[in-house]
Formats: sequence, C-alpha cells, structure tokens
Amino acid sequence: MKIERVTESLSLKRDLDSGTEQQRQAVLEILANVKKQGDEALLAYTEKFDGVKLASLKVSPEEIAAAYEVIDEELVCYIREARDNIYNYHRRQVRQSWITTETDGTILGQKITPLDAVGVYVPGGTAAYPSSVLMNVIPAQVAGVGRIAMVSPPGKDGKLPAGVLVAANECGVKEIYKVGGAQAIGALAYGTETIPRVDKITGPGNIYVALAKREVFGDVDIDMIAGPSEIVVLADGEANPAYIAADLLSQAEHDMRASSVLVTPSLELAERVAVEVEKQLATLPRKEIAAQSIRDYGAIYVTETMDQAIAAVNELAPEHLEIMTTDPMSIIGQIRHAGAIFLGENSSEPIGDYFAGPNHVLPTNGTARFSSPLNVDDFVKKSSIISYSKKAVLANGHKIAALARLEGLEAHARAVEERLKS
Amino acid sequence: MKIERVTESLSLKRDLDSGTEQQRQAVLEILANVKKQGDEALLAYTEKFDGVKLASLKVSPEEIAAAYEVIDEELVCYIREARDNIYNYHRRQVRQSWITTETDGTILGQKITPLDAVGVYVPGGTAAYPSSVLMNVIPAQVAGVGRIAMVSPPGKDGKLPAGVLVAANECGVKEIYKVGGAQAIGALAYGTETIPRVDKITGPGNIYVALAKREVFGDVDIDMIAGPSEIVVLADGEANPAYIAADLLSQAEHDMRASSVLVTPSLELAERVAVEVEKQLATLPRKEIAAQSIRDYGAIYVTETMDQAIAAVNELAPEHLEIMTTDPMSIIGQIRHAGAIFLGENSSEPIGDYFAGPNHVLPTNGTARFSSPLNVDDFVKKSSIISYSKKAVLANGHKIAALARLEGLEAHARAVEERLKS
Repeated sequence: MKIERVTESLSLKRDLDSGTEQQRQAVLEILANVKKQGDEALLAYTEKFDGVKLASLKVSPEEIAAAYEVIDEELVCYIREARDNIYNYHRRQVRQSWITTETDGTILGQKITPLDAVGVYVPGGTAAYPSSVLMNVIPAQVAGVGRIAMVSPPGKDGKLPAGVLVAANECGVKEIYKVGGAQAIGALAYGTETIPRVDKITGPGNIYVALAKREVFGDVDIDMIAGPSEIVVLADGEANPAYIAADLLSQAEHDMRASSVLVTPSLELAERVAVEVEKQLATLPRKEIAAQSIRDYGAIYVTETMDQAIAAVNELAPEHLEIMTTDPMSIIGQIRHAGAIFLGENSSEPIGDYFAGPNHVLPTNGTARFSSPLNVDDFVKKSSIISYSKKAVLANGHKIAALARLEGLEAHARAVEERLKS
Repeated sequence: MKIERVTESLSLKRDLDSGTEQQRQAVLEILANVKKQGDEALLAYTEKFDGVKLASLKVSPEEIAAAYEVIDEELVCYIREARDNIYNYHRRQVRQSWITTETDGTILGQKITPLDAVGVYVPGGTAAYPSSVLMNVIPAQVAGVGRIAMVSPPGKDGKLPAGVLVAANECGVKEIYKVGGAQAIGALAYGTETIPRVDKITGPGNIYVALAKREVFGDVDIDMIAGPSEIVVLADGEANPAYIAADLLSQAEHDMRASSVLVTPSLELAERVAVEVEKQLATLPRKEIAAQSIRDYGAIYVTETMDQAIAAVNELAPEHLEIMTTDPMSIIGQIRHAGAIFLGENSSEPIGDYFAGPNHVLPTNGTARFSSPLNVDDFVKKSSIISYSKKAVLANGHKIAALARLEGLEAHARAVEERLKS
C-alpha cells in the first residue's frame, strides 16, 4: 500500500454510476409495462432477464422448507442470534408519540405512525446476502410496519438462494416474491395482482434497480443509492498491524472500487501495516478484487499528530471507522462524520456487518456528513398534533392574524378571526 | 364547491413541474460557473436575473437595523412569541446519544451529531415569508447545527424584505446573503470566497431552485421538493360551516393548484359549507386565485358513515388535516397518513402556519404516507457505536466467521479470526 503524508484535503468521493440514457429508457419502458400489465409483465421480464419461466411469483412454504435442508443447522442458530441482536439494538431506537398540555387547554404533540407497507429488494447471484435481509427487514418490523414484501431475482432454476430464504423466514417475512430488476421495483411501487404496492422500498441493487428506484421516488419513498464500501482505520503506534491489515482487506474484497484507508501519526505502524496487507492478501480467495481495490482506492496517510489524524477522518467522513488507539472512547467526541464507529482492537468491522446489532446499511461516498445508518425512524412518520382551545385562540388570534397579513395572506387572517367572533 | 359521493379511490396527487430540458441545461451551466468562478459568478447572475449590481453579497448590520424601522414593533413581538413557541416545540424532539453496556464488556450505541452547516433558501418577491425563516432555521438551531447560512434573492433595490431580515435576526442568524436562484444553491453546495459550503439545503424555491437542489443532492443533502398546499377537513354534522369554509379558503388563496377538501358523512353540512365558501370568497383580496383553486382542486366528499370518511382521509394522505368532530381525540388513532393534524373547531390551520410551534414545512402530494414534517432529526446524524471486548469476540468470533463464509466473504471471516489467535 502507498504511504503518503496528508498534504491536501481528503475525500472518499467517487463518481457513482448514474446509468446511460439507454438504460434509463429501458427502465422507463419496464416500469410502464409493469404498471399496465401487472403480473403478466413481471413473468415475461423474469423469463427474458433471469432465463426462467415461473408458474408463480410467490415463494411457497415448500420452497422455504427446502432451504432449511441446505443450510447447516448451526448456521441457522447463528442467524437467529444475529437476528435477536439486531432486533434488540433497533428496539432502543423506538420513539413514542408524545403530547404537551398547557393550562389554557392547548395540546401539541407528535404522533409516531409506522409505514403501512415496505418492500425490501435483495440482489441476486453472489450478492444475495442473508445479512442484508436481516438488516433491512428488522428495523421495519421494529417500527411496526404492517406489511413487508421481499423481492429477489430467481436463479435459472427458478429458486432463491437458501440463505436468503432462511434469513427471511427467521424474521417472519410472509411475502417473498421471485422477481428482480426494474420490474420488481415497478411492482412494489404500483402494485400488481399478486404484489400489493408498498410505501417505501429499501435494499441495494444493480444499475437498473437504482434507476428504477430513482424513477418511482415520490410515488414511494426509497433509501439512499449506496456507493462502494469504505473503511477508515484511525490508529496510534500501539495498534496491532495484523488486525488493521485484516480489516482493510475485508473491505477491499467487496468490490474493486471499495476504499480502505489507514490514518495514523505513526510511520512505523504505517510501514508494518503495508507489509501485513501484502502478506495477508496473497492467500485470499478474492485477492484479485482486493488487490485492485487496495491499489486504486487504498491509502495509508501518515500525519504529524493524532489531532491531524482525527481531522483527516472527519474530512473523509467514512462509512466505517475503526478507532484503534489505547483509549478510543476519549476520541469519539471529536468524530463528527462516520456511519459506524468501531472502538478498540477487538471491534473488527465484520462484527458489525453480521452480528453485533447496529445496522450495516450505512452512508457512503462522503454522505456520512449528513446521513445516518438505516434505522427505525426510516420506517415511521411523525405527524404534528395541534389542538387549540377557545381560550388559546381568543388570547392569540389577533397575533396570528397580524402575522398572516404581514405575508399578504388575508384569508389566513380571516380564518383565525372567524374564531374570535362571539 | 362540487359535492360528490366517494365512488372510487381518492388522491391529492398532482404532477409536479419537473422542468424542461432547457431549464435543466441552464441550471447545470449556472452551477458549473459558480463552482469555477465563485463570488464573481454570483454577482454576475444577480445582476442578470435580479437586475441589481451588488457591492457585497452579505447583508450588513445596517441593513438589519433598517429593517426594524419598517416592521411594526408589535409585529416584532409576535414574531418573537412565534419563535419561542417553535423553539419550545422542537426542543421536545431532541434525542440524546445513548449506549448499552453488557457484562461481557460489549458497548453498543448511537451517537447523535448535529450537521456542521445548513443553508436555508428563502424565495423572493411575495413568497418571501418571515414564517418560513423561523420554520427552517429553528429546527436546525435546536439540533445544534454550528453554522446556518440564509440566502434570498434581492429586489431591484438590492434589499431583502424587512420581515425576512427581522425574522432571521430574531433567530440569531449571522450569515444572510443576497443571492437567489440556482446560483445560490451552487454557492451553498460548493462554497465560494464569501459563502462557505454547507452540508444540507432546505427551503422552497422556484423551478430553477428545485432543479439545482436535485443536481447538487449527494454533494449535500436537500429537503423534499414541495408540491402545492393541501387541506382536508374531516367533519361531522355538528361542525361550524363558517369555520370550515374559512379554513378551506386559507389554503386556496396560496396557489391556483392548492387543494381544499371537505370529507363528511353529513350532506347538510356539505351544503352549508358550499354556500359559506361562495359567500366568503366574494370579499377575499386573492379571490381569483382562491376561486380557481377551489374550482379545479376543491371538493366536498359526502360519505355514508364516519368510518368511510376516515378511510377517505387516509387515502388522501393530506398535508394538513383538520378534525372538526365533537370528539376529535377519539379519531386520531385511526388517522394513518397526515402531515399535521388539527383537532377541534378552534384549531384553525393558520395557527399552525405561524404560531403554535409545530413546523409548517410538511409533506405534500400524498407523501404523508411516508414522510414527516421538517424536524430536528433532519439536522442530525445518528452514527452507530460498536465496541466488542476480547471476551465478546472470543465467545462469538466463530459464529461471525461462519456467517461471513456463508456469503463467500473469506477476508471478513479471517479479520474476525485474527482476533481469535493466541
């Protein structure tokens, strides 16, 4: 890995694939056909794009039972434990509706209401991750969402991956549909005979899925379009180079455009990590991907001081931040921008990907400056409550009317003054 | 107003202006020039579009002092009272960072961090509302945002409206810039010599502002693109027709595309409201706008039962909902989708626009199904905290490695296993 001194402002931003005009047109056509023809269009597109003619879109109880034959019993137990950890963490985020009452009779408040229905997209092929099922489904369930519909493109055998089915079933997902791509997004946004429409769609996908999500936004809500994964490790001279190298490589194996960065005031550590990365890389099954990611988007920045290193982290605003210093808790208050913060040498990033409880759907590409991990708030609405008594309106009505007139809105003023008439 | 029986599914959705290709190209050019030339571009565009050659973009203390000469002292007091009400309401929304600790040393949590900097756009001309200044600025301040930069296009006299300046000053806004349009959005997103960049931009604007916000989204966060205003009144036979008519008209005067709807099981009330609307409309200064809005987007729906009326409200998912029944609190639990809910006959909607405390920036165009009023959460990030002890990783590391291998991510498994050595 390159070792550099920080000389100018840092950024993890990469241009995201925004698709070609041809891809956009293809997506618009698919969405229009799904809106018009419903299930018929879904089945036709599945035959065309996934190479399989399905009799039914909905996954049957038999298919779920068959998935359990494939997945090791111990793994099912680990999935359950991960599920419980994720559930317990997100449960802490739940907010209650609240009101304030005043002696003049005024009541103000916020009514928290879960979304009616949410759609979760799970990509196909090697990116069909059981962990993504848990991370997208559980916050919605904890929020109290009434209906969760999962969609995923079937393989040529007409099946979904066993791990995905087991994870969905362990969460209690009742609606699982074998449909992917832009057509699945159309089904979730507009509804078909088999798949009722939802209010929000979450989950990652390829460029067609991303373009379709952008198009249906407004009809339904969507989550953020994610960029490649990132990790920044902030370490002092005491940190373990083998741990750091292993964690950098765990990001690098995701994607050739993933970004793995070490920031440290210790040149000695920097050099030892660089050696460890080469050593560990050599035996990785996905070493081509990881090596290219490290070469193109990896970096080791050496700073003069720890404060400079912390400033560099805030400039990078990473998706994942590991703090490997002797007292990581003493630094956390200085971290302004990071999706997930891992403290101490034992808190390896994959612990958060799979098991600890916090969400692994995190802001990428510098958006940690203003965005949060997927959370329970993403699946509720907060409606305002306003109740004014006669007494309150008599005391304040003339003020409100005056403010309305300042803005030239006479009907607003009169609406309030109507209440002031005996 | 038309009185109709509800026969099919209802919607307040209108096609929003998404701009022409020509407008989009103009916006892209403006943004590129602002990025390249900074203040110079801002001053040139202000001369071109606003017809005024400015010496300085920043509003001076003298300009603010002059604004107080224009605004009635009593009005300033009302603005202060509104500000305090808004502040007190939003203060209730503030969340604390939290952690959980376990006996094995595991610490999980959520770190709440305010955004570094926020930009507030205030439209020019007759839409320069002091109330919008309060509603956009205060939630950001309550969240703890460090820097708030307000932008608004100057008039031909090179000034901003006095009411806007007074409202901003009463909130303690220190940075106010005389620049509007796409160029103002570019300045906030990329920064110029005078205007440092921000992390999020809120506030309404014309089509150029809306297109510019869409373009810079990703570099910065933006709020929702708002549609025309809407009110739905849910009333029983006991409700006061003059109150309802006045409130319907207060929405209708906003915009020819605003939507004012009454839903009631009482045909008698429906007929009396229709008469009242005509009567009150006749003397309104903005009667042309209100009349066209009522004609094109107004409706009175008469249902068989109150339950049907409530179902209609949920289908409409209005921005503003007034419940004018004898016991409105008994109905609130059945309301699933509404931006702001006004309870009882005294709670006229303009009370919420100006004074009560809850935000008047609300989800429109059916998005109340999945969106919330502007609130403190919109100005913070919630970073995850994960700290695993040696004990915790020894107990759970093999499970995490197994889950990683199920997904084919060997480097993830090895990163955790590195901690299990010796």
